[in-house]
Amino acid sequence: MQSYSKSLRLQGKRIAFVPTMGYFHEGHLSLMKEAKKMAGCVVVSIYVNPAQFGPKEDFSKYPRDLERDLKMAESVKVDVIFYPPDDEIYPADYQTYVDVEKVTQNLCGISRPGHFCGVTTICLKLFNIVKPHIAIFGKKDFQQYISIKRMVDDLNLDLQIIGLTTVREPDGLAMSSRNKYLKENERSSALTLFVSLKLAQKLYSGGERKASTIINEVKKLIKKADYTDIDYVKICETNTLNDVNEIKSQSVIALAVKVGKTRLIDNHVFGEKLKV
Amino acid sequence: MQSYSKSLRLQGKRIAFVPTMGYFHEGHLSLMKEAKKMAGCVVVSIYVNPAQFGPKEDFSKYPRDLERDLKMAESVKVDVIFYPPDDEIYPADYQTYVDVEKVTQNLCGISRPGHFCGVTTICLKLFNIVKPHIAIFGKKDFQQYISIKRMVDDLNLDLQIIGLTTVREPDGLAMSSRNKYLKENERSSALTLFVSLKLAQKLYSGGERKASTIINEVKKLIKKADYTDIDYVKICETNTLNDVNEIKSQSVIALAVKVGKTRLIDNHVFGEKLKV
Repeated sequence: MQSYSKSLRLQGKRIAFVPTMGYFHEGHLSLMKEAKKMAGCVVVSIYVNPAQFGPKEDFSKYPRDLERDLKMAESVKVDVIFYPPDDEIYPADYQTYVDVEKVTQNLCGISRPGHFCGVTTICLKLFNIVKPHIAIFGKKDFQQYISIKRMVDDLNLDLQIIGLTTVREPDGLAMSSRNKYLKENERSSALTLFVSLKLAQKLYSGGERKASTIINEVKKLIKKADYTDIDYVKICETNTLNDVNEIKSQSVIALAVKVGKTRLIDNHVFGEKLKV
Repeated sequence: MQSYSKSLRLQGKRIAFVPTMGYFHEGHLSLMKEAKKMAGCVVVSIYVNPAQFGPKEDFSKYPRDLERDLKMAESVKVDVIFYPPDDEIYPADYQTYVDVEKVTQNLCGISRPGHFCGVTTICLKLFNIVKPHIAIFGKKDFQQYISIKRMVDDLNLDLQIIGLTTVREPDGLAMSSRNKYLKENERSSALTLFVSLKLAQKLYSGGERKASTIINEVKKLIKKADYTDIDYVKICETNTLNDVNEIKSQSVIALAVKVGKTRLIDNHVFGEKLKV
């Protein structure tokens, strides 16, 4: 992969990269389509990265379907699928990790210690292998997107990071490979994440600027739904991801909710469109 | 610097890089001369990296002399001196660090916590800015050399790391910018580091393979010299830097000794030439 990318670069070609854990949905495909518009060569990696899963998390049962993924990638004209084996990514005696210290602390950083260190480390490795000019991430994983942007700036990587709007099901549920885990009777409860973001935006549009008021209303709504167990509902500044009390300029409401056994996340930047 | 390196690469030119903290001596110049043999463009960075100094260490008094350094670099036909300001390397809210977890633990890692994290982080940043094909380090800082090689392998950097033999004063003292700190009456004591490495090699050549025996003889010798205070004398496997009991294949004796207020380090890989 590295040699191929090097030869592309020597030919003056642009490489756009979409790192994924596979099990594609429309969200992934939207990233690939956008990549195709931006560069002559689109590389998509499929790698379920053990380093970003906690010991009690869903690494082994994370959904995988390479055949299906290959067909879907082909349908949107992806040029290269990079599908590395574990023992090449983390050989025996592997010992180097990248830590973005501040923006990884809040939100999912609290309930998933080590997760973002795993994410930034694998992304840095993949960037070094794939040598892209542009890398594209979905903003459903907002903290991941901010952490990677921060790493790229801090480490002086010569690479542009682009974040794209979350793609949603027709009713508003954010696309996620983990939606597969949802049981039939949990599906409507899962929608409460989207509905609560709409409520937050409605309160904001009505002039509410106190974070705690919006958070309380959102929590009340989510608790009404069956099978829900809130991990967090927070309103943060979009760059630092520090909690804010008063919503001023750029603020994001981010939430993580367990629906049955499935942990789902979603977010909304106030003032932006909340599209379905 | 990054744009310039990118343009060199697009022209197919090779870049050799020598990262330094300045205050050049013959050791630095030997790295630059070697770099000149290996690539069309030699870049030398001069940056006294605050992140690799502990709070009680000599960051502020570390010797600096840019004018002198520029002349010396010119004398060996260095193409580019990269001399970045602090606020571009570590801007406000900087927060990303690279940690090589195992090989940084022993030796200097014990008495200088955080030092190697600072070293690997600045090197990674400089590699991303300078985009070299080759980077050259002196083996006087053996643990630094091993840590950087490890980082480069682990993070899949497309970069060759080369380590060169320590350059010594005519009597054997390893060249170091910190030798400047030595008072006249401490200079002969400083030589005990080299003399003790010679003793270690002599014992090895005579068939001794027990690490503790060699370490004890070396410590005895160093303690005899005035103003000396041993931080460590250890024998380690050259790749993992784990302590060894029996010297088998690749083993290095490494030592750190304070001479007056000046902390000096030196090392020797058994079986290699101990050149003056």
